[in-house]
Amino acid sequence: MEAEKSSTIDAEEAAKHPEVAEAVKRIEALRQTIDNIDGAVIHLLAERFKATAAVGVLKAGAGFAPADYKREDYQIARLQRIAIDAGLDTNIAEMYREFVVTESKKRHKRIADAGGDPGVLDVFA
Amino acid sequence: MEAEKSSTIDAEEAAKHPEVAEAVKRIEALRQTIDNIDGAVIHLLAERFKATAAVGVLKAGAGFAPADYKREDYQIARLQRIAIDAGLDTNIAEMYREFVVTESKKRHKRIADAGGDPGVLDVFA
Repeated sequence: MEAEKSSTIDAEEAAKHPEVAEAVKRIEALRQTIDNIDGAVIHLLAERFKATAAVGVLKAGAGFAPADYKREDYQIARLQRIAIDAGLDTNIAEMYREFVVTESKKRHKRIADAGGDPGVLDVFA
Repeated sequence: MEAEKSSTIDAEEAAKHPEVAEAVKRIEALRQTIDNIDGAVIHLLAERFKATAAVGVLKAGAGFAPADYKREDYQIARLQRIAIDAGLDTNIAEMYREFVVTESKKRHKRIADAGGDPGVLDVFA
């Protein structure tokens, strides 16, 4: 199987190929923006999973199932609307929602199976 | 096939089952926090995909491949570090990274195949 092609874009590459030096400089600036965005998202996801772990404990205590399809329908419609406003491909928004909701439900189920004990998730609660 | 169990958690449910009304109230408050976080993340993802579309155009123009494995190794190590600091399961951080990088590369490839034209991605650039 042929390996996927990869180009390393850095100062060394720019020095060897002066014709692409300007593109390398602009790519490096954009990458810093991308890294800053990712840092912010990781911090937000940390808060999100703390909140969903707390929901998991409450659901298990009250005997609710991990899934709530009415809530999911609401989230889908809301995030699609926000994505359109923000100029984001709505498929990306739906992939994001699917990812976080799936992972949250897996964790809710684990909490319920442990009798409402968030266990290793304790650090998030 | 048995459908996955689902519990609708809302004011109507709380009125029918006063013994879980307190849990429902707390779940609803946490859900508002979760929705606010998701709104923020969607806005950040809109900016992220604008930045990666611009990188895609620059890469295609300079003849770089969509993938850059040295960059990916850097991103993996960085996001794992941020996740640990933030108290987020590092598997979640890696799933997030894999998702956004995979989608960005798909879009870079499309831009390169279109001869550097971001096409429908124009709205993001």
